[in-house]
Amino acid sequence: MNIKIKWLRDQLKTQNLQGMIVSNPVNIKYLTGIEAEGILLITLKENIFITDGRYVESVNTILTIDDEILVNDKKNLSKDDYAGFFMFCENVGFEENFVTYANYKEYLQTFRVNLMETENIIEGQRTIKEEKEIKYIQKACEITDKCFEFLKGFIKIGMTEKEIAFEIEKFYKTNGADDIAFDPIVASGHNSSMPHAVPGVRRIKDGDIILIDMGCKYKGYCSDMTRMIFVNHMEDEYKEAYSICLRNNENAEREIRDGKNMKTIAQNSNNDLKENGYVALHSLGHGVGLDIHEEPFFGIIYDQPLKENMVLTVEPGVYNAGQFGIRIEDTVLVTKMGMERLTKTPKDPTIIHCNDFKK
Amino acid sequence: MNIKIKWLRDQLKTQNLQGMIVSNPVNIKYLTGIEAEGILLITLKENIFITDGRYVESVNTILTIDDEILVNDKKNLSKDDYAGFFMFCENVGFEENFVTYANYKEYLQTFRVNLMETENIIEGQRTIKEEKEIKYIQKACEITDKCFEFLKGFIKIGMTEKEIAFEIEKFYKTNGADDIAFDPIVASGHNSSMPHAVPGVRRIKDGDIILIDMGCKYKGYCSDMTRMIFVNHMEDEYKEAYSICLRNNENAEREIRDGKNMKTIAQNSNNDLKENGYVALHSLGHGVGLDIHEEPFFGIIYDQPLKENMVLTVEPGVYNAGQFGIRIEDTVLVTKMGMERLTKTPKDPTIIHCNDFKK
Repeated sequence: MNIKIKWLRDQLKTQNLQGMIVSNPVNIKYLTGIEAEGILLITLKENIFITDGRYVESVNTILTIDDEILVNDKKNLSKDDYAGFFMFCENVGFEENFVTYANYKEYLQTFRVNLMETENIIEGQRTIKEEKEIKYIQKACEITDKCFEFLKGFIKIGMTEKEIAFEIEKFYKTNGADDIAFDPIVASGHNSSMPHAVPGVRRIKDGDIILIDMGCKYKGYCSDMTRMIFVNHMEDEYKEAYSICLRNNENAEREIRDGKNMKTIAQNSNNDLKENGYVALHSLGHGVGLDIHEEPFFGIIYDQPLKENMVLTVEPGVYNAGQFGIRIEDTVLVTKMGMERLTKTPKDPTIIHCNDFKK
Repeated sequence: MNIKIKWLRDQLKTQNLQGMIVSNPVNIKYLTGIEAEGILLITLKENIFITDGRYVESVNTILTIDDEILVNDKKNLSKDDYAGFFMFCENVGFEENFVTYANYKEYLQTFRVNLMETENIIEGQRTIKEEKEIKYIQKACEITDKCFEFLKGFIKIGMTEKEIAFEIEKFYKTNGADDIAFDPIVASGHNSSMPHAVPGVRRIKDGDIILIDMGCKYKGYCSDMTRMIFVNHMEDEYKEAYSICLRNNENAEREIRDGKNMKTIAQNSNNDLKENGYVALHSLGHGVGLDIHEEPFFGIIYDQPLKENMVLTVEPGVYNAGQFGIRIEDTVLVTKMGMERLTKTPKDPTIIHCNDFKK
């Protein structure tokens, strides 16, 4: 049987659950590779994917006999079929953080079984990446490094943030990525002081600071990186803040290894910012995988150990409200003894030399 | 008070609800104009938007005193504050089709009140557009017409579907739209036979048929249009199917007016397709507004009358599996006596004259 489903089945058993209804399409893709509308039933005897006529053929193409997943077209299922799926099951899990209240009631009526919350059991499983998943994230990070290299030559004085953001999207889509992983942030000058700035019509000027936060998807898996670009020269006011942020980022990365408590690392990072006169406006990082933000959430409220083969971001930021902000972010892989940076763009200040942009 | 909230309050009263928790951000934007994370409480005495520190300032900027909406930063609210919001309320509505089961349970604990399903009450309210909303949709349709005009000159033999789709997105983003309303469909040759084709690497050839389904957003409101493009000439095999589809589209549009039953119109359209040897693979259309697909759903299962100032699509399609498909789609406004087409691109077959595309 598909090893991810086998693992899930073992987990369900320890929670006294005899089955599970998986509804979140990201979790279904994770467990089975299937990208189609439908739900996955883990029953006592079988694994069943219920979908509709549009998808039956394509789903059967990607499954192998080893997956042991039966595909059912819902138009062939009767009320009794539904009521029979979880026969002899006392408790069946569902995804309480994904399923709407209306769907929950519908599941109760359809499957006639006792539904139990599963507390993100699959999201927990997803935190530890297997080899193939790491390869896909590596590839997404590699394309992101290339995109940054491209931007260094592309950005010109007079361009708007929007134009640069658009070019990032175009680069990704024409250089092997499936898609962007999130709307890129291009925040220049004082806009960089807002952690979640939206690219606007501000034009790049000589001496500007530009924050670029971007990532793409490769075979569904995401990358995430933030770097700062300085136009023609780096103004003195940015230098101290940059070195505070960089040192913080590097210290945090140095602390990462299998078994180390996440809260401790995040607390150390926050304390360091505080000692330097800054407040942490957001958490230190987050897991990256099929979702751009996923478990584990890397902050002071996540009192859990890091584990080998987790992939997460390290992204401390220093922000001077209304003036400018600096953030340096990598996607990293947790290893037995430390970590491996998957985004490999150098972290020294990037100063580009460019002239006016004439349309 | 804000007239949309006033209307909602009247509706709640008729359902014996003394308040409502609005969680769906699209519904919050519809009722208040607010675009920020948070929830809107309609309580006995007040309207309250609960958000966090990041948004308090920007939300207060867009609200006027006439809105009568109090903005609360959640960090200033105690458990007792939450429990007090719906004091003296017997039943309070919530959005069962949006709220997850986990959130539902959290609401129960936080607000300590009896929660009742509201059966898409706000989505129903959103079906009838007011003047300002119609203007925004008109503008989104106008940009879409311009985009089609642009494409007629842009498409060249040798381009891929993806390249054309990308250019549609770029046109929208640089010609006054906020964004695309959905990923554009560009389906050429046999790809056009799949109603939900994804633009791929197939290159445009002489004599090709190209299905283009696209729309943008203007101030949050969507447009939606499908047209066919024929490259250099229209092959005979397409002519009959095109005229069947066009006649079906025009007949359906002719039937539209305030009070007319939607199921009847959709049934007539399906019957006409059947008489011509085709099967309706999808419904005749859907409402368009802040969401690209919203109520009313215009098909044979929607046994409801059209109402003045609804905005919906009319999009019959004829599909020859594995060969080609033709769909003609407008966004239209329902009027007292008929309808007004908001997408105004002509519906005769569009034949473009173009040569090879040299990079």
